[in-house]
Amino acid sequence: MMTVTLLGTGGTQPLPNRALASAAITVGGSTVLLDCGEGTQTAARRWGVSIYRIDAVLLTHYHGDHIFGLPGLWQTMAAMGRTAPLTIAGPPGLEEIISAFRAAAGPLPFELRLIELAECRGKFSLPAGEVEAFPLSHRVPCCGYALTLPRAGRFDPVRARAAGIPVPYWKVLQRGEAVGGFTPSQVLGPARRGLKVVYGTDTRPCEALCTAAREADLLLMDATYADDADLDKAKRYGHATCRESGELAARACVRRLWLTHYSAAVTDLAPGQAAAREAFPDACAGQDGMTITLNFDAE
Amino acid sequence: MMTVTLLGTGGTQPLPNRALASAAITVGGSTVLLDCGEGTQTAARRWGVSIYRIDAVLLTHYHGDHIFGLPGLWQTMAAMGRTAPLTIAGPPGLEEIISAFRAAAGPLPFELRLIELAECRGKFSLPAGEVEAFPLSHRVPCCGYALTLPRAGRFDPVRARAAGIPVPYWKVLQRGEAVGGFTPSQVLGPARRGLKVVYGTDTRPCEALCTAAREADLLLMDATYADDADLDKAKRYGHATCRESGELAARACVRRLWLTHYSAAVTDLAPGQAAAREAFPDACAGQDGMTITLNFDAE
Repeated sequence: MMTVTLLGTGGTQPLPNRALASAAITVGGSTVLLDCGEGTQTAARRWGVSIYRIDAVLLTHYHGDHIFGLPGLWQTMAAMGRTAPLTIAGPPGLEEIISAFRAAAGPLPFELRLIELAECRGKFSLPAGEVEAFPLSHRVPCCGYALTLPRAGRFDPVRARAAGIPVPYWKVLQRGEAVGGFTPSQVLGPARRGLKVVYGTDTRPCEALCTAAREADLLLMDATYADDADLDKAKRYGHATCRESGELAARACVRRLWLTHYSAAVTDLAPGQAAAREAFPDACAGQDGMTITLNFDAE
Repeated sequence: MMTVTLLGTGGTQPLPNRALASAAITVGGSTVLLDCGEGTQTAARRWGVSIYRIDAVLLTHYHGDHIFGLPGLWQTMAAMGRTAPLTIAGPPGLEEIISAFRAAAGPLPFELRLIELAECRGKFSLPAGEVEAFPLSHRVPCCGYALTLPRAGRFDPVRARAAGIPVPYWKVLQRGEAVGGFTPSQVLGPARRGLKVVYGTDTRPCEALCTAAREADLLLMDATYADDADLDKAKRYGHATCRESGELAARACVRRLWLTHYSAAVTDLAPGQAAAREAFPDACAGQDGMTITLNFDAE
């Protein structure tokens, strides 16, 4: 089960009811933040995302609308008594940015564990799932992220009994861990479809995003411009139009698409959503606070 | 005429409807920000304060809840096409803080003019009025600010005619400027009461604040704790209780007191306001967006 919450759907400049870029993915007691624009800590409180449980912040790039919420988030974490390390991942340049914020924020009572993603690529594990970073197509190096929650194969009690595996071991093997000389492959069928959420902003539509998003349960994608007439601007500034996001979602055969990272000039979300729906009928205009809980497929 | 707007009344941590420390004072087409906590740019939009017209930001000190809105504000100013310099004043350490934010924000299309206030003291002029900084009593060096709009003496047309001053010069002399060999003192009575707004947070009650606030039209003061039982905490962390703010306002004979900079634990403002009113009956619990326009006294 993964719960995804949009904390901020604004790009460049915030509006009174639209915070800057951030989304939260919660799995069990662990939350991953995707970007951390100014106002993220307030949005987390507003929309019921526990700041205390944030284990990691995945930064796409270092434009201010994606990062200026970091030092305030750290200080609130400190005020809450946090001592657990916080993982922060991002494209090359991460250490310089974090150093600048550290200089402004002063000492923190917890460790920052930095993962600088060379060429915007990398794979690592978090308590909330498996992360894969991939390069987007923006004006500066920019990472997209796929967060995957794998699902083990079905447990077969007939095979477990036939192999003489004691019942107390069954749960351990079901979790995919070896125990008492037995291995999961003795009792589990082939791995089943898990859950995958892909975060792709800021970016032009690009093959790396399309590949990473293939059959995702949910794609959160740059939809800076609602009007097709702004396509030139989208190309110039390294963003996508809502229509382009719909087209990419259709090509990638995702299950759901949420548009996000709107220009402050986009005050009516309906036209952009309609444009995206021409290619991808289930496209949804993201809004601050929008949330969904994704479950594994019924067997 | 001075318009004062509370942009954020929260201390340390924001709440969904309470942004971090910031207030705006507008005189004519010019605005001064007092502090710039995270979310200030959003609050300015929400409460109708033009970001474009901000000439100066006066920082009390460098705790995050007072400054983390700066880089986002700069970037929004840049996106609006600003080229006019922005004055930023604050206690010693200003250059280091601004350097850190510059490193995170990247190049800006306008100049930052820094005024570092040695020993938290200094006087300077802004388009919105005369600023006097004075030291507060906090855990770190912290400036209070008095912003004064002076008012010239009454113009006496009888004296102007008797001195043979041509009528086209009258307006110039009324503004306090010499013209054509004539001086304002020839036609103006003694200077009249102007307007004064004093910003005093974060601080314990202290003599410097009491002196600066004497007979102010409006005092905005640290009222971190609503409950008298938190007095020890107030002393430990360098803040004031609501009751203490009311007492200082009464001693300083101010006209109005607005409580601000509440702890996130203060969710009901009524008890703190009641405590402040025991000494100062016109005390008002500040809230985000609260605004007042102060006018010169009727003659």
